[in-house]
Amino acid sequence: MVPTMGALHDGHLSLVRAAGKPTVVVSIFVNPTQFAPHEDFDTYPRNLDGDLAKLKTIGAPIVFAPTPREMYPEGFSTSVTVGGPSVGLETDFRPHFFAGVATVVAKLLLAALPDVAVFGEKDYQQLLVVKRLVRDLNIPTGIIGAPIAREADGLAMSSRNTYLDARERTIAAGLNKVLRFAAGRARSGGDLRDAEAMAMAELKGVGFDSVDYVAIRDAETLMLTDDPKRPLRLLAAAKIGKTRLIDNMAI
Amino acid sequence: MVPTMGALHDGHLSLVRAAGKPTVVVSIFVNPTQFAPHEDFDTYPRNLDGDLAKLKTIGAPIVFAPTPREMYPEGFSTSVTVGGPSVGLETDFRPHFFAGVATVVAKLLLAALPDVAVFGEKDYQQLLVVKRLVRDLNIPTGIIGAPIAREADGLAMSSRNTYLDARERTIAAGLNKVLRFAAGRARSGGDLRDAEAMAMAELKGVGFDSVDYVAIRDAETLMLTDDPKRPLRLLAAAKIGKTRLIDNMAI
Repeated sequence: MVPTMGALHDGHLSLVRAAGKPTVVVSIFVNPTQFAPHEDFDTYPRNLDGDLAKLKTIGAPIVFAPTPREMYPEGFSTSVTVGGPSVGLETDFRPHFFAGVATVVAKLLLAALPDVAVFGEKDYQQLLVVKRLVRDLNIPTGIIGAPIAREADGLAMSSRNTYLDARERTIAAGLNKVLRFAAGRARSGGDLRDAEAMAMAELKGVGFDSVDYVAIRDAETLMLTDDPKRPLRLLAAAKIGKTRLIDNMAI
Repeated sequence: MVPTMGALHDGHLSLVRAAGKPTVVVSIFVNPTQFAPHEDFDTYPRNLDGDLAKLKTIGAPIVFAPTPREMYPEGFSTSVTVGGPSVGLETDFRPHFFAGVATVVAKLLLAALPDVAVFGEKDYQQLLVVKRLVRDLNIPTGIIGAPIAREADGLAMSSRNTYLDARERTIAAGLNKVLRFAAGRARSGGDLRDAEAMAMAELKGVGFDSVDYVAIRDAETLMLTDDPKRPLRLLAAAKIGKTRLIDNMAI
């Protein structure tokens, strides 16, 4: 299974391939409960016909595209919350996001009961939250994280990239460049907190209007760590105008 | 499947029969997360050998008796909460109870993936919460509510009845008697709130030390209702010393 919010791009199609199964269910559902009132639920790109056409080019998987009413009928009143990897980072800026994600992912996985489900590493914190959710509730599905698909200039593919005009699109490419630079500094033994602070300043320098976070964390728990033996992950979120972009990479 | 906390009595055995399946999994797990610190988790009766012997007399179902560490390993951090039918009644007196129940029931059902799971009507509010949970999360299990098993004098069977000494045991039988009386008043057109208040007073009269609630509610939602066409349920919780007893019945 590949759970998506639609507005499919090549990154999504790579998730379908990463499932490595002859039969793949792709769900398309812009989940209202993971958007805050001030966020872009209403304007989030929707293009079911285009999505179906794209999926046909890679062999027509089964598509599940429910309405909000089908997912949350009258009387619906259950919420799944995950602590652990959901603490901090995205949660500091989107406090209700992961409860919305965990609840809808639980529902989608239990409706389809797939052997595996594929989530992109672009939403790296979400991937860890989903892994924790599935392990904690004994959901009988293996979770696969698939590498970030990128444009030629390094920008992580995202349905939200369509919000960017030409000027903003040029700035957006700076996110991946700055992070690669910071990852290099961290790998060559630079102080991790210095690398974060320099990347934040550089993002503003290349034209981002605000930076929510640049953080180097334990790659499995997202906790702060000084243990040089732990795997690390660099994660960032920054805004150009109203458009919020995220990216991340292994250190 | 029949999820239990062990200390099995004939009521539990009737749940196994109510499953109506050739293969039944009985889980035995005193779930720490549904007890508050001041409650009886430590003293809750445990008797695995006796439980296994009793289950053998009805044909040896499969038993799943995990340790707390198996259910909640290091790093566990997910919680399932159900609104709707969990509001009020038990929640007013045991605020964390239903989150503990919903989370462990989700885990047990997803570990076993049974066709059906049987819950006793004795924990009537819990039965409604579990039904809501299973519907809301798309858990692929049918939920069966089984009638309350009672002692000869009407006392609802409960593992907690072993806490009662002879004097308390006599008082305990009054719970069902008082509720049957109140249900009769309600059925013959008496004011529902008067029937509740009279039953509360009568419970104290027969020797209960305190009464948490006596409530006549919509049998499907547990909401207050004045609609004469809705099915009603009478529910009560009362204490003798430290022992808390619950009972309920249809109006």
